[in-house]
Amino acid sequence: MVLLESKADKRLGRQTVAFANPPVLAAAAAVAGPMEGEGPLGRLFDEVVPDRLVGQKTWEQAEVKLLEKAIHRALGKAGLKPTDLDWIVSGDLLNQLGASSFAGRTLDRPFFGVFGACAAWAESLTLAAMMIDGGFAHRVGVAASSHHEAAERQFRYPIEMGYQRPPTATWTVTGAGAAVLVDPRAVGDGAWPRITHATPGRLVDMGIKDPFDLGSAMAPAAADTIEAHLRDTGRGPGDYDLIITGDLGQAGRAIAVELLMQVGYNAEPVLDDCGLMIYDRKRQDVHCGGSGCACSATVFAARFFGDLRAGRMRRMLLVSTGAMFSPTTFQQGESIPGIAYAVAVESQSAAREEDR
Amino acid sequence: MVLLESKADKRLGRQTVAFANPPVLAAAAAVAGPMEGEGPLGRLFDEVVPDRLVGQKTWEQAEVKLLEKAIHRALGKAGLKPTDLDWIVSGDLLNQLGASSFAGRTLDRPFFGVFGACAAWAESLTLAAMMIDGGFAHRVGVAASSHHEAAERQFRYPIEMGYQRPPTATWTVTGAGAAVLVDPRAVGDGAWPRITHATPGRLVDMGIKDPFDLGSAMAPAAADTIEAHLRDTGRGPGDYDLIITGDLGQAGRAIAVELLMQVGYNAEPVLDDCGLMIYDRKRQDVHCGGSGCACSATVFAARFFGDLRAGRMRRMLLVSTGAMFSPTTFQQGESIPGIAYAVAVESQSAAREEDR
Repeated sequence: MVLLESKADKRLGRQTVAFANPPVLAAAAAVAGPMEGEGPLGRLFDEVVPDRLVGQKTWEQAEVKLLEKAIHRALGKAGLKPTDLDWIVSGDLLNQLGASSFAGRTLDRPFFGVFGACAAWAESLTLAAMMIDGGFAHRVGVAASSHHEAAERQFRYPIEMGYQRPPTATWTVTGAGAAVLVDPRAVGDGAWPRITHATPGRLVDMGIKDPFDLGSAMAPAAADTIEAHLRDTGRGPGDYDLIITGDLGQAGRAIAVELLMQVGYNAEPVLDDCGLMIYDRKRQDVHCGGSGCACSATVFAARFFGDLRAGRMRRMLLVSTGAMFSPTTFQQGESIPGIAYAVAVESQSAAREEDR
Repeated sequence: MVLLESKADKRLGRQTVAFANPPVLAAAAAVAGPMEGEGPLGRLFDEVVPDRLVGQKTWEQAEVKLLEKAIHRALGKAGLKPTDLDWIVSGDLLNQLGASSFAGRTLDRPFFGVFGACAAWAESLTLAAMMIDGGFAHRVGVAASSHHEAAERQFRYPIEMGYQRPPTATWTVTGAGAAVLVDPRAVGDGAWPRITHATPGRLVDMGIKDPFDLGSAMAPAAADTIEAHLRDTGRGPGDYDLIITGDLGQAGRAIAVELLMQVGYNAEPVLDDCGLMIYDRKRQDVHCGGSGCACSATVFAARFFGDLRAGRMRRMLLVSTGAMFSPTTFQQGESIPGIAYAVAVESQSAAREEDR
């Protein structure tokens, strides 16, 4: 067969979508564990649970509770009930999406589970924005979670072993972030954060095989997606108040800055990393920084959503980063592919000026 | 905040999407393992690999190869290269999407990983159809895979243990299915199978805890999604030539038929199951039938795509079914939520008559 040439009407360049009617982030909420609560963003979280088990018997059940709490808090802030949602899009790190699946069970709405490792937050936001701008949904719940102890047990060793973590290791955030994304026609003219663009990422594998250095495994994917976004939109790093990666940590951030420099973009002044913001790295023993699906989800919901809503920030590029690290394929000698999804979020005034 | 009431313009009822310009399935391909090749659909597969390891060293690497082969064969049938795809949507059963992630790495296009257990095939088709009908993509590659030995090792026991399988057990299909979904403007007026509706499912948990009886765990989800689809579209089972579930097997199919009967739909005459079609259950020792992401993917690609393309079938409802079975949460005493995604696929003449 021969397909005729045509171009999807919301595509910019090779890899970026520009939404015709940028979906509105009506609410966002973050629930965090006790250690995250003691970090620099502690007072910004909607809830800090006092106990890492959240009153449950297992780390996995605790993560389900964190995710449920975050979704219900986001819904509450938007004045909605779970039944008001058309769809839920959610991801986490547990095998078989153990947190999202069980949280989705109690929410009783049609559910899309995604796996993008720690990039699940922006992957979910991308799909939800497509659902709304495409006319398939009016309100979508988006969520992502992770839990330090559940992740360590699954990916490395149970924490009871007390193993030594190398300096390149990051610390999986215990927490969950959620947001309610709505059709812009639902909110009128208020100053709402809106998702204007999305740049889904490619799987990029530079041969990193060290499960304690996932920042280095993800940095090339982050740089690849940011480069694609800037190339497709014709923007430079300076067009953003902030470009924020998910969980590259200190080592990974430096690599991403260097890789972007090599292709002509100086992102150094505006590129920060959620993993470098969530903990006090001098006082809290987290080595390279925070990581996990909840890292970019909670930092975005607790801090940047508010900055955008209050007009303290005009335009940001959120780049959640994921390492497709599998203990099975690692033991078989395979390297670790990375992936990154970018979403551009703007306060309304900026979105109006937008020249597509 | 108070959100204004509005309704997404492509929604029918509470749970179903009706595509404005139904995306076209331009090609589909199925690659199967040797045992599947010996089954009743053997001659319909695009390729039957002679060896379960597909020349690799591990079951997981073998599954990656099956997935790559299926995608390349679907692309070849559509006369396309990987770089012609806007996005790839793919899912599998391996932890961290071990097959999709590694196959995605070599395809080098933006990638969305989904996890819906064995329902990944219809979940991916749903998202891909939204991407195209929403104007976000012109061509999307969709894929799903599973591998018997990789799945047994991960979910139950390594096959080397030679454990005894109970009669309710199903047999995970070794294989992969792929399709290329395109904007209908690209193909002109030929008789192409088109996705007209999608009904994403809710997570339904009836308390089943037996990992050797996933058909019973998934049947309530299948019935729930089919009921929602029929209610939302105002159709009856008889409006479909075939309603085909993914991998309920013999036990699960009977439960789904009974549950639908209880809500007033007699689906008995038209409801079949891919898991009951892929093996010769008298000759091949598979107990309740086939299962796995590849079950509905390969049966759809090998058999039903051809039936629709050739006009031997007018309209079908494909209902991939998934059990969110996690060995970790199972060991913790949790039950197994099920989920099912339905997509209505029609030959062009039927799509034209469609009264939305």
